[in-house]
Amino acid sequence: MADPYTSHFGPNNIPYGIASSAKHPTPQCVTRIENSIIFLASLSQTPPFTSIPADLPSLFRSSTLNAFAALPRAIHTQVRAAIQHAHTTSQHSAHAESISDVTMHLPMHIGDFTDYSASRNHVLNAGEAIQGTRTLPPGFHKFPVGYAGRCSSIRVSPAPITRPLGQYIENPAAAAADKKIVFGASRALDYEMEVGAIIGRPVEAGTHLAAKDADAHIFGLVLVNDWSARDIQGLEMNPLGPFNGKNFGTSMSAWVVPLEALAPYEVPAPERMNPEAEFLADPRPVNYAIRLSGTVVRNGARTTTCEVGFDTMYWTFRHMLAHHTVGGCGLRTGDLVASGTVSGDGDHEHGCLLELTMGGKKTSKLSDGGELRFLEDGDEFVFTGVVGEGVGFGECVGVVQPARKI
Amino acid sequence: MADPYTSHFGPNNIPYGIASSAKHPTPQCVTRIENSIIFLASLSQTPPFTSIPADLPSLFRSSTLNAFAALPRAIHTQVRAAIQHAHTTSQHSAHAESISDVTMHLPMHIGDFTDYSASRNHVLNAGEAIQGTRTLPPGFHKFPVGYAGRCSSIRVSPAPITRPLGQYIENPAAAAADKKIVFGASRALDYEMEVGAIIGRPVEAGTHLAAKDADAHIFGLVLVNDWSARDIQGLEMNPLGPFNGKNFGTSMSAWVVPLEALAPYEVPAPERMNPEAEFLADPRPVNYAIRLSGTVVRNGARTTTCEVGFDTMYWTFRHMLAHHTVGGCGLRTGDLVASGTVSGDGDHEHGCLLELTMGGKKTSKLSDGGELRFLEDGDEFVFTGVVGEGVGFGECVGVVQPARKI
Repeated sequence: MADPYTSHFGPNNIPYGIASSAKHPTPQCVTRIENSIIFLASLSQTPPFTSIPADLPSLFRSSTLNAFAALPRAIHTQVRAAIQHAHTTSQHSAHAESISDVTMHLPMHIGDFTDYSASRNHVLNAGEAIQGTRTLPPGFHKFPVGYAGRCSSIRVSPAPITRPLGQYIENPAAAAADKKIVFGASRALDYEMEVGAIIGRPVEAGTHLAAKDADAHIFGLVLVNDWSARDIQGLEMNPLGPFNGKNFGTSMSAWVVPLEALAPYEVPAPERMNPEAEFLADPRPVNYAIRLSGTVVRNGARTTTCEVGFDTMYWTFRHMLAHHTVGGCGLRTGDLVASGTVSGDGDHEHGCLLELTMGGKKTSKLSDGGELRFLEDGDEFVFTGVVGEGVGFGECVGVVQPARKI
Repeated sequence: MADPYTSHFGPNNIPYGIASSAKHPTPQCVTRIENSIIFLASLSQTPPFTSIPADLPSLFRSSTLNAFAALPRAIHTQVRAAIQHAHTTSQHSAHAESISDVTMHLPMHIGDFTDYSASRNHVLNAGEAIQGTRTLPPGFHKFPVGYAGRCSSIRVSPAPITRPLGQYIENPAAAAADKKIVFGASRALDYEMEVGAIIGRPVEAGTHLAAKDADAHIFGLVLVNDWSARDIQGLEMNPLGPFNGKNFGTSMSAWVVPLEALAPYEVPAPERMNPEAEFLADPRPVNYAIRLSGTVVRNGARTTTCEVGFDTMYWTFRHMLAHHTVGGCGLRTGDLVASGTVSGDGDHEHGCLLELTMGGKKTSKLSDGGELRFLEDGDEFVFTGVVGEGVGFGECVGVVQPARKI
């Protein structure tokens, strides 16, 4: 399944990001049409932007998208139409630079990062890899299971990722009494292919958001690679969940694709297998038809390790936001709510190596004949997401760098 | 063990906070001596502050302590001495208001909140209450176990806490096949008495901080009440840890007590029971002699439910910061790193009700003859910490409000 589209960034996408360049040394808000990066503080000083009731030039001079993302959806719709109009009339080109001349920055200030585990296939496969049984947590069919991640470690693609040091069981196959805990560089570095929702309009703490109303609070979606050190994570996560096994780095795509661009690609989520609590009921449980693809590049050889659709996710972002707020937790503009690893039920639909190689217990063939268990130093992981002609996320990539010397 | 000291806020404390008042309508940096709240932007325009090499009036006009906390320790020492000098000469009084005339605000912008589980007694007692066995996680003696918490839900004392709604097992004592998951207001609301460290000087991602060097990055300590809904938490935390069982609200004391005020009260941490990894080795593993006290107020009757020393903590903040950064995770100014529930090995040293009432399976006597299992609507929990004459944290309090109507 090669990418069937000629472009991720046609005029029907209009994603948002933060860029700087020699001409625009201060990071600021941009959009992208094909390979043109359009500086919005500048463009929005011209009609028809000037008739939109918001101080757009000032908002777009910000070094994050937060202030813009917090605006009402009606303003987003007007700005989107104005950008498309500017493109049609070529008015945008005076405010544009080539993608090769700009540096992309983290698009949001992220005050809280939640990572869910919303794929039923992932949970079953991961359970099989770790414990040998395809079981679900007791609440899995009742609510999306999630945990809090580390905000300060979120990096924009293509930031490299450094192999973490930590403690883990040196000989996991040994009998319990012989297992030895050692300290060193992780030997089980993995990727996790995820999609993330960026919160636009905030949800005040104590105000429950119904699943059916949740889309109004999502500014757009991004790709997220939740790099994981499976050995460190395996030792630490009983009973409080992942910590150092995840907090050394999380990659995010540079482009936030707005829900308006994704609306034509809504697809039904899998059917409920068990009645969920009433507060999660959604007359329209939708995913998006995002085709995710992951490629390991080792010694120059490219091997596509996973191709999976986001339509497989058991819980939708609408469910995730409803569950998140039901207890009284608020959501702030810029919060990142990630889906967890996206996996299907096919052999080529495993969104992480924990599943593909059964936690390194078996190998997966690389295109040059080599063997893949976990990521090695120098490996690059290229993660892409496409939705339709002209609508995609671009790449979320990172190269593995060796661990710090002890 | 009633509080043996006449004051928490003598001139040997000099804590920092954020306050506003009718005269000072914009929240800004303050300190406190007895019941005088001293506005530092104003005071620092006078000698000897004016000879300190930092733009103190500007830093102190900020609505958080972050910019001040990030300064080198040498500046903090000079500011502390200057405040003490101003008090000795009564120069402070022109810049002071009574505590009864001010409103306290959250002292820090908190970019990440980590909650550890650093008390060996707490882990053993909680395990006994939940699973009936006094067992430790496999890595407990090797590193402090921690997880990420929710930043947006952190409130300054005395903010009320609203009982969360959520899903939980209605009949936990039933046979596994008969257990029923329901949605409603939590029936098992608990407090957790913790101490938190506020990060001052940041630690850049990828720069490991040795335990012995960690104090230089701690601005000061606070009290933290990590309110917990044990029923919601119990169902959700397998395998990714606590989420909605905790993220509905966390209380923090209004005053950050600087390490300099606590230095005279350093005490040795309990001895290692097992060799830790080399990177955690600390020639001087110290806790602070903080005496914590928790009181439930129900129908006007006050019952002290816990009195425990922070000297009991198995892992110190120095260990926690070293473990936090070893994998490559950075720490930013304002980060909150909490200890987890502080518990001793005595019957009156249980820092939460999960331990005291064995998860509600037994009752604890209230002073008016009533029975305590978990917190009821209208209950107030008053949590204090004192260190020595004139040095304490004041109170971290909250009243339980009824759940939102479904």
